[in-house]
Amino acid sequence: MPKTIGVPREIKEDEGRVALSPAGLHELVRAGHAVLVERGAGRESGFDDAEYETAGARLVETAAEIYHESDIVVKVKEPLEREYPLIRRGQILFTFFHFAASRELTDAMLQSGASCIAYETIEAEDRQLLPLLTPMSEVAGRMSVFEGSKCLESPAGGRGVLISGIPGVESARVVILGGGVVGLNAAKLAAGLGAQVTIFDIDLDRLRYLSDILPPNVVTIFSTPYDVRRKLYDADLVI
Amino acid sequence: MPKTIGVPREIKEDEGRVALSPAGLHELVRAGHAVLVERGAGRESGFDDAEYETAGARLVETAAEIYHESDIVVKVKEPLEREYPLIRRGQILFTFFHFAASRELTDAMLQSGASCIAYETIEAEDRQLLPLLTPMSEVAGRMSVFEGSKCLESPAGGRGVLISGIPGVESARVVILGGGVVGLNAAKLAAGLGAQVTIFDIDLDRLRYLSDILPPNVVTIFSTPYDVRRKLYDADLVI
Amino acid sequence: MPKTIGVPREIKEDEGRVALSPAGLHELVRAGHAVLVERGAGRESGFDDAEYETAGARLVETAAEIYHESDIVVKVKEPLEREYPLIRRGQILFTFFHFAASRELTDAMLQSGASCIAYETIEAEDRQLLPLLTPMSEVAGRMSVFEGSKCLESPAGGRGVLISGIPGVESARVVILGGGVVGLNAAKLAAGLGAQVTIFDIDLDRLRYLSDILPPNVVTIFSTPYDVRRKLYDADLVI
Amino acid sequence: MPKTIGVPREIKEDEGRVALSPAGLHELVRAGHAVLVERGAGRESGFDDAEYETAGARLVETAAEIYHESDIVVKVKEPLEREYPLIRRGQILFTFFHFAASRELTDAMLQSGASCIAYETIEAEDRQLLPLLTPMSEVAGRMSVFEGSKCLESPAGGRGVLISGIPGVESARVVILGGGVVGLNAAKLAAGLGAQVTIFDIDLDRLRYLSDILPPNVVTIFSTPYDVRRKLYDADLVI
Amino acid sequence: MPKTIGVPREIKEDEGRVALSPAGLHELVRAGHAVLVERGAGRESGFDDAEYETAGARLVETAAEIYHESDIVVKVKEPLEREYPLIRRGQILFTFFHFAASRELTDAMLQSGASCIAYETIEAEDRQLLPLLTPMSEVAGRMSVFEGSKCLESPAGGRGVLISGIPGVESARVVILGGGVVGLNAAKLAAGLGAQVTIFDIDLDRLRYLSDILPPNVVTIFSTPYDVRRKLYDADLVI
Amino acid sequence: MPKTIGVPREIKEDEGRVALSPAGLHELVRAGHAVLVERGAGRESGFDDAEYETAGARLVETAAEIYHESDIVVKVKEPLEREYPLIRRGQILFTFFHFAASRELTDAMLQSGASCIAYETIEAEDRQLLPLLTPMSEVAGRMSVFEGSKCLESPAGGRGVLISGIPGVESARVVILGGGVVGLNAAKLAAGLGAQVTIFDIDLDRLRYLSDILPPNVVTIFSTPYDVRRKLYDADLVI
Repeated sequence: MPKTIGVPREIKEDEGRVALSPAGLHELVRAGHAVLVERGAGRESGFDDAEYETAGARLVETAAEIYHESDIVVKVKEPLEREYPLIRRGQILFTFFHFAASRELTDAMLQSGASCIAYETIEAEDRQLLPLLTPMSEVAGRMSVFEGSKCLESPAGGRGVLISGIPGVESARVVILGGGVVGLNAAKLAAGLGAQVTIFDIDLDRLRYLSDILPPNVVTIFSTPYDVRRKLYDADLVI
Repeated sequence: MPKTIGVPREIKEDEGRVALSPAGLHELVRAGHAVLVERGAGRESGFDDAEYETAGARLVETAAEIYHESDIVVKVKEPLEREYPLIRRGQILFTFFHFAASRELTDAMLQSGASCIAYETIEAEDRQLLPLLTPMSEVAGRMSVFEGSKCLESPAGGRGVLISGIPGVESARVVILGGGVVGLNAAKLAAGLGAQVTIFDIDLDRLRYLSDILPPNVVTIFSTPYDVRRKLYDADLVI
Repeated sequence: MPKTIGVPREIKEDEGRVALSPAGLHELVRAGHAVLVERGAGRESGFDDAEYETAGARLVETAAEIYHESDIVVKVKEPLEREYPLIRRGQILFTFFHFAASRELTDAMLQSGASCIAYETIEAEDRQLLPLLTPMSEVAGRMSVFEGSKCLESPAGGRGVLISGIPGVESARVVILGGGVVGLNAAKLAAGLGAQVTIFDIDLDRLRYLSDILPPNVVTIFSTPYDVRRKLYDADLVI
Repeated sequence: MPKTIGVPREIKEDEGRVALSPAGLHELVRAGHAVLVERGAGRESGFDDAEYETAGARLVETAAEIYHESDIVVKVKEPLEREYPLIRRGQILFTFFHFAASRELTDAMLQSGASCIAYETIEAEDRQLLPLLTPMSEVAGRMSVFEGSKCLESPAGGRGVLISGIPGVESARVVILGGGVVGLNAAKLAAGLGAQVTIFDIDLDRLRYLSDILPPNVVTIFSTPYDVRRKLYDADLVI
Repeated sequence: MPKTIGVPREIKEDEGRVALSPAGLHELVRAGHAVLVERGAGRESGFDDAEYETAGARLVETAAEIYHESDIVVKVKEPLEREYPLIRRGQILFTFFHFAASRELTDAMLQSGASCIAYETIEAEDRQLLPLLTPMSEVAGRMSVFEGSKCLESPAGGRGVLISGIPGVESARVVILGGGVVGLNAAKLAAGLGAQVTIFDIDLDRLRYLSDILPPNVVTIFSTPYDVRRKLYDADLVI
Repeated sequence: MPKTIGVPREIKEDEGRVALSPAGLHELVRAGHAVLVERGAGRESGFDDAEYETAGARLVETAAEIYHESDIVVKVKEPLEREYPLIRRGQILFTFFHFAASRELTDAMLQSGASCIAYETIEAEDRQLLPLLTPMSEVAGRMSVFEGSKCLESPAGGRGVLISGIPGVESARVVILGGGVVGLNAAKLAAGLGAQVTIFDIDLDRLRYLSDILPPNVVTIFSTPYDVRRKLYDADLVI
């Protein structure tokens, strides 16, 4: 059954993402839904209004219109206080909520009468995977190597170590605690830079897969609190 | 013939390097030279005074003592105005000078009567290589990838592109102009991060070597001003 | 219970394959079955009659004998009209049928009273895999790169692009639609040749596996009709 | 001293190349030379007349004009008989000549009074390298793998071997005689396809370099007539 | 419920292993159990008594004390005859037993009234994996390459073949029968040494995974008794 | 000018090599020389007499005949005392001599009047390379990894470390002193086994080449006595 889906502009500080790319929006329109986009919603993500219009969006001027007309509102961050009054009973809100972090938010949503579906709780059909968190973890794992590299530079107060080394100068020793999505992605980048990488995990089958696919400058170690401590002592960077 | 060699603390702003590591100093001492180190000279490079002493240095309190007692003074950066009066006739100064950039420095050194040997002009015996510049170029080439990555992040005003991509999201297109020491080192790191790298150069033999040793996500293109322009248009990052 | 299994010579135009190799036949004989082979059945696949005899076959002169004596007939292609009268009620026919493509074939088989088992419909026990199609797809994916390369050559009317490039000349941009068996195999070969490969798929978990195991000149992109179009515009070759 | 340089259209059968790309022409124009291009000269190489004009060419209608006005004529193939009368005394002809293959051509050029510089004889300054032949050899080495692959297909009368194999089916054994430019380039592509590659050469230092940079499915063997013969016996493909 | 767990010193000839490392012991202590270790139990594995004590063990002087005080006894090898009388009714014995190999051992354990859990029979929850055998198989597969290499040396009576070859001398042909845990681990090491490796297996899906993750000097072949024989004929080393 | 060349059987203890393979002998015969081989000379290297005969040798029964008839005698090891009297004035002896190690040998050769050319002193035309030592160094470098691995096993009195590790257990730390022929070859094998390899050298250009071609689990460090010591402390294996 076709629905009206709305995409408000994110108003939380430092949040530049938008819930739907023009490509995603186009898929929904192809499936028969109407999609409203608040003007400027995609600007900080590099999508301008015209692109959304080409992809099939109807542009509206205010968040109020989005909430008023939509069956489903898709966002990135949880609603802020000034958005609470816009939410309608029976409306579906689809966004990151992290309810455990805010009693106030939880109470407001309960009172709104809306159905709140939190991205962070969506599970894949037959597994423990959290498909909406995986890409965040992939980005986090990869970014952690850049952030760690910055911290090793001396202007940032680090030891003045270049993570990759150069010929004749040793690369950094990077220790990664946990070989899940974050750890795998951190390991790929740190290894790609030539670091000497060690991954600790308690799941031997996971370590077997990691040692099948990662380059040889990644060493895997079955992790016990007793052993990790010794390895950490030598590390330039711990992720 | 044994000499007295002195290592003053660098005083130019933002310069944290030191001319000799304890290991290098130890080599000179083993060869019979006396080496003086100004207290604190290695601190910002992670070498404390005790380490120099263990390696064979005699620690002194002031730069004046260094210049007064040494046959050869080794530094990193060119002397600043307040160091000019310390330099003695017949003394050897070994440091980066970059005389072309400063008439004032050049005149001051001419008047000092010291022999000035500029790191940046040292050539290898039978080649055009500049051995004291190569490691700087290696570091510069590698750092350029980190600096470029930062510039692509949206907080830095970039397009919000993660240079490595993630599964399902394309990695950045990186164009490198020149396949010398800087270019090779930049290519290694950008390729290690999974970027789609293109190197332009006008030396086909160099491109042949690069395509022998670099991973397959580096493409080499013989460079003409006519062709480069078109490729640059598509790039996320140009080094 | 031991059976008599027959292998007729394929008579469809351009079909040079044979249903059983000597090695496969040998396994059936070891398991206690009798296997009949029509003379010359393996010739175009490089297996001569003597090799089948060594492996345990009984050679017969005609397809009629095969169909007359066998409980099970194994073939490669569907029966042609002149083979219809040879098929016996209760006999098992094991071959590619592709019934959907021919009403005439379907009716003929229904009237024959034989049990027809189509290779293309065999499923693995606990998965959606089609084990008899997978090797065909592997070959198809790999051959597609050779066929595509030919099409890029100028004698074949192509752009005169060498898929691998040479040092100083860019390799081809190859776009692969779908990361299943065909796509993976095409990607391996195109990447092995040094092409700049992009795989589109809508299954992120599959793309994650592909990015774990494929070389770095393969980029994976989550596919939407909206995005694919733009990438295709730049491609030299689409598989 | 600025010259007038002319690029006639190639008229030898099956020759679709052109002596100058627009990019190369642009370099000559930037250096102050005038460059004439015969209309249609670049068509079969994918460069249209407009592109040459943009790059700075003056287009002319006939080969006669090219030869009449140019100080230097650059071509791909040697002049054919009907081009002989166009060549002027003192003019420089720069093309592939292969004089050893044709007495008639050699005599004609001697009589023309032109200075003939053969691409195939140009040597690099301080080495035995032939810089204008190397790219031809690179293309030849790479193409040989595609041509060899075609010959292994059964429609082409081959053994029906897929050079790459598939999982469970062995890849082809490829033997390469000589590890020079052709051999190295053939090896890279054959190895990239997963073949089992053996290179024979009599220069151990060259084999050392090859084993440093080629993937592990390339084996190097010091070549003697005595040993090569045995290895050839097993090969699917010899390049 | 906290238990007392005992680790006797192994007394079977040539057995230098110990059932618990200090790290493993530390985990049990953290979980609230008491762990007794016989003095010297870890010596041949490189763990001294002090290390166990630091990790939380109570050291005892004799095996008799271990068996007398422990609810669970963990060992490496099956009990020897002189250990039988120490075992108490109701006690849990956790070790490799291999009952099928010794009627005497089986009867003795039945009479002891202890609960015997054999490492070699422990299965993972939802699969056919044997988690306590996998690491043994990994070590065995890897060691097999070293043992095989020794056998190829001429002092050991071999053909005088260096498994890796050198530039100009072919590496060894290594055939591996079975692509399970042992085969995969043998293949990784043999391939890492540069050998020409062939793996035979009858599970095509496993061969597909192996060809995804192993380097290109590993060829996979679907195995039939008929085909294997021919390949073995050429091998330098069969694992 | 054709010569008679002789190959005696080596008689020094533990020496199983032979100076000429049948292939090498065949080359000499093709060049017009006569080659004599003492019966059994190649047996321990896997070449039987018949193979030499096929390649063009004349077999003789005794070393005395070899020395009596040959212009040039090619050997592996230096002559032993009982061979001295066989050597004739003016004869050329081509073998490893290592004169510095034996005054007695040197005097005997001086008195013999033969021309002694020592393999170990042959230099390449325009370089410092020693072409007859390089293959020995390649073998030595590679063998050192196998010998080192054996020493790490506990039956050999080692720490019980498997150089490759297994998933979950760290691989060995291997330190290689010097990045010449021996070091490069040792590094290739140790790295191929998955060890964590560090190469020390004082030639930065060599380290640059090594870091271009070796896998990422090889770290290069510019070597000073001061730094090496610290790294050695952590190593499992030093080569």
